[in-house]
Amino acid sequence: MDKFENVTVVKKANIYFDGKVTSRIVMFPGGEKKTLGIMLPGEYEFGTESKELMEITQGSLDVKLPGSDEWKTITGGESFEVPANSSFSLVVKETTDYCCSYL
Amino acid sequence: MDKFENVTVVKKANIYFDGKVTSRIVMFPGGEKKTLGIMLPGEYEFGTESKELMEITQGSLDVKLPGSDEWKTITGGESFEVPANSSFSLVVKETTDYCCSYL
Repeated sequence: MDKFENVTVVKKANIYFDGKVTSRIVMFPGGEKKTLGIMLPGEYEFGTESKELMEITQGSLDVKLPGSDEWKTITGGESFEVPANSSFSLVVKETTDYCCSYL
Repeated sequence: MDKFENVTVVKKANIYFDGKVTSRIVMFPGGEKKTLGIMLPGEYEFGTESKELMEITQGSLDVKLPGSDEWKTITGGESFEVPANSSFSLVVKETTDYCCSYL
């Protein structure tokens, strides 16, 4: 799906790491929330509250998921899931455009 | 207005200047289009096709509009207009979150 229809978009962006990571909140009629975000090249650590699905629309990054010592490369069209209440590490190699779903 | 309701959001971001400027297309029921974007600190030159209203939600920049030699500082809550078919220069001093309307 290349666009989200009949949604609500919060005008103010979320800005992290001095603007190197930013996102927009998109709310769906059924109450679901997603964020559409951009990550510039760099190393980041994120924490989750709920389980998350990270879909990579464009770009390239390496992810190390909780409980693993392995780095996995994820590029445009691919995705990864992160359990609730955990943290994950990213090395963003190319500016990455993502869609995060809160499951 | 802090959010846009009943809109369509294109999932894929527009990425310019190696990710230092990125935006999302938001389409309204009446056919109007806006972009919600982020500009990291830096110097940029942009061109317009239609007349544009640039509303700054967060951040700070200096703008030099067409036909002027003056730099004007614009911060969160302020806006500026750019005529159609012209170009304008920006010096972004703080990561800037903007909403561009095509008039």
